[in-house]
Amino acid sequence: MEKIIIKDLFKNMQNFENKEIQVEGWARTVRDSKTFGFIELNDGSYFNNLQIVFNDSLQNFEEIRKLTISSSIKVTGKIILTPDAKQPFEMHATDIQIQNLCTQEYPLQKKRHTFEYLRTIAHLRPRTNTFNAIFRIRSVAAFAIHEYFQNNGYVYLNSPIVTCADCEGSAEMFKLTTLDLDRPLPQKDGQTDFSQDIFGKKAYITGSGQLHGETFAHAFGKIYTFGPTLRSENSNTKTHANEFWMVEPEVCFCDLEELMNIEEDFLKYVVKTVLEKCPEELEFCDKFIENGLIEKLKKVCVSSFTRLDHKDAIDILKKADKEWEFQPEYGEDLAKEHEKYITEYFNGPVFVKNWPKDIKAFYMKLNEDGKTVAAVDLEVPGAGEIMGGSQREEDFEKLFNRMKDLNIDTDELYWYLELRKYGSTVHSGFGLGFERLLMYITGMQNIRDVIPFPRTPGNCDF
Amino acid sequence: MEKIIIKDLFKNMQNFENKEIQVEGWARTVRDSKTFGFIELNDGSYFNNLQIVFNDSLQNFEEIRKLTISSSIKVTGKIILTPDAKQPFEMHATDIQIQNLCTQEYPLQKKRHTFEYLRTIAHLRPRTNTFNAIFRIRSVAAFAIHEYFQNNGYVYLNSPIVTCADCEGSAEMFKLTTLDLDRPLPQKDGQTDFSQDIFGKKAYITGSGQLHGETFAHAFGKIYTFGPTLRSENSNTKTHANEFWMVEPEVCFCDLEELMNIEEDFLKYVVKTVLEKCPEELEFCDKFIENGLIEKLKKVCVSSFTRLDHKDAIDILKKADKEWEFQPEYGEDLAKEHEKYITEYFNGPVFVKNWPKDIKAFYMKLNEDGKTVAAVDLEVPGAGEIMGGSQREEDFEKLFNRMKDLNIDTDELYWYLELRKYGSTVHSGFGLGFERLLMYITGMQNIRDVIPFPRTPGNCDF
Repeated sequence: MEKIIIKDLFKNMQNFENKEIQVEGWARTVRDSKTFGFIELNDGSYFNNLQIVFNDSLQNFEEIRKLTISSSIKVTGKIILTPDAKQPFEMHATDIQIQNLCTQEYPLQKKRHTFEYLRTIAHLRPRTNTFNAIFRIRSVAAFAIHEYFQNNGYVYLNSPIVTCADCEGSAEMFKLTTLDLDRPLPQKDGQTDFSQDIFGKKAYITGSGQLHGETFAHAFGKIYTFGPTLRSENSNTKTHANEFWMVEPEVCFCDLEELMNIEEDFLKYVVKTVLEKCPEELEFCDKFIENGLIEKLKKVCVSSFTRLDHKDAIDILKKADKEWEFQPEYGEDLAKEHEKYITEYFNGPVFVKNWPKDIKAFYMKLNEDGKTVAAVDLEVPGAGEIMGGSQREEDFEKLFNRMKDLNIDTDELYWYLELRKYGSTVHSGFGLGFERLLMYITGMQNIRDVIPFPRTPGNCDF
Repeated sequence: MEKIIIKDLFKNMQNFENKEIQVEGWARTVRDSKTFGFIELNDGSYFNNLQIVFNDSLQNFEEIRKLTISSSIKVTGKIILTPDAKQPFEMHATDIQIQNLCTQEYPLQKKRHTFEYLRTIAHLRPRTNTFNAIFRIRSVAAFAIHEYFQNNGYVYLNSPIVTCADCEGSAEMFKLTTLDLDRPLPQKDGQTDFSQDIFGKKAYITGSGQLHGETFAHAFGKIYTFGPTLRSENSNTKTHANEFWMVEPEVCFCDLEELMNIEEDFLKYVVKTVLEKCPEELEFCDKFIENGLIEKLKKVCVSSFTRLDHKDAIDILKKADKEWEFQPEYGEDLAKEHEKYITEYFNGPVFVKNWPKDIKAFYMKLNEDGKTVAAVDLEVPGAGEIMGGSQREEDFEKLFNRMKDLNIDTDELYWYLELRKYGSTVHSGFGLGFERLLMYITGMQNIRDVIPFPRTPGNCDF
């Protein structure tokens, strides 16, 4: 007997007409009357369920009638096309075997649960329609990201997550150790003796793979990283988690304008791919999570992104007939309310570029005005900033002096500086917080609901 | 002027015949005579170099003659097919602009360096032929892994790397903290007060995503993880690193035999893809790293993998006319020398299955004999074990009792146990150490040489 997955049935139902096949999965609902009944079966391969019809010709009919939700079963039966019914086909069962009868305490009975409650059963929530949709979209989007870069000649770099350089600002980095934390730490000369730790010095989890990415870009031309990142921020907001995934491409022979071309092309590719591969999931999100979601996503795929200097953005904000909570200022960052206004003003995604150097990172290329850097943030309607990038300072002297000005250890980062001596290039890169993108694509409002097992301050269950 | 990447030139050289184009890259070698010269240019897109011919009609001819290795340049010129020459085409330069003249201290001059030395310049080594090949293969293999699973209906799970459960055996896990390690740790009731740490308890980096993978498999049927893993082992061997990448698929409605089918199909897919996409890189590895590499890989793609019980493997080893360093025993693990003998005996990859339960993990399914578990290791010629998997114990009582026997905290892992109450399934999964696979595919003998920036005891530079 051929074992078939439910997705294949939906994709090629004609092929299975009147054929007897076997499926295995979990009962999502069971309805019965005296002599027959229906099971909605899901095997995880597809968002929609397979409708199984069974009747009292089954030897174990009484047992099947009492089947509990989420029980795992194996069903043999015939596929019957039902063009006039709600579902396009159904399966008439000739045999149903119970693999495991789900106990009555199963918490996901047929009713709505709050997202807050579902976070407390993170091991079970992917079985709900909502989280089944979210985490399948997550998987499809992740693969689309790989596809985009691989198809465009980028090399995937697995940058290290352990580092002994604290130049990123150790305040935001987790410390990593093999020392016994249940006892007093070993001391030497009145200080903690990290020479006894596994790397012989103090170690951290890095918050970015960019600097390593630049080294590989200077060998492969174009690279990207995609992996987990930890930040130890103690902030309990809807958009912060201590563990999240980042995408960081880095491209040689690429200036800020070309970088924006890549960002735009990349975002459209990922959104388009999810639209194509997850129609059922997005329809569900559109209906129950964010009305108008699909229209929003389709629009992004065809809109041309505005490109605007930071100072021009401030001009627009200053002229706006609006009461701001935070006054827009030329030398300062954009607040959430500003980002929102700008994307509404242009009715689509906006690149804000050429930022005041003092609020941006040391490695960004200083513009000729000496005041701004070639940085760019992409703001999208409804989600604000989702990507941040820049052209990198490729001049050794300028980078060295900037690091000195900011008290960044140039000895520790000698290898990063050396890239500017050994065939330096005009190069650029950006960072994308994968969860931010997912919130944008799915409409989910809390980062905890797009991460399989979220880690936030005070929360590290499962 | 059209900017072209060198890979496109090699793939479609006919299209560019006699066309004037632009390329940007790094000079790998420069040879010159009085009136003309050659530059081997690499832009990172392709393993092979583009040959540039330049002559004294260039305004800056004298400057170009003195071009240092690894300088970054932009070249405009015409593509001329040269069917009778060593290289299939060359570029006749009409203009060469130097973007950055590499300084004379550049350590990668035209001579052979040891792998040991190259590890000390990990930020530059991907510019060498060897590491250019290795890390491009790494990227291609990583994508092939994603492709295999996505094309076969698996959902990609980003399992968490932070955990507060120490059931895996905290001896092998790194501790992760936001506490200040430069001062005495906060105390409460005579113990370290982890309530002041960010998660409110002691936290670790997990060594496996399998348990989380099982929860998602019970929602999606088939899932895989692919991400970095840390183990704090203090072992300095050629096959151990503290940071490495793991692939962990988990499949519901799948027993041990079906798992072996998947493992075999998966391995062949990845090897075949690398053979197809990296012919130049593999030829280089075959020539300079492992003679016969390509033949070995091609053979794996067409061989049928032997399946053999652990006890039968021991029988073969015991009968062998060989002096063992470690005597083969029925109740024990296979030593490296045993793995080698077995793969040579069968002249191909071998699945060794049904292992003594006492040397395997708590979650593996107990066979009917009560003595062995449904575990399987895949041994390949020349590399030994590269995958380890098992059918999982799906019976609540058996799993619970086994955990109690082994003093594993059943309260902490309640969520893992609950999978056996709420629609448990016959399910299986395996783990693949990505770097082990890469060593097998490339022939590299040291794990430090297949990891971009390796972390091993005492080594965490860059």
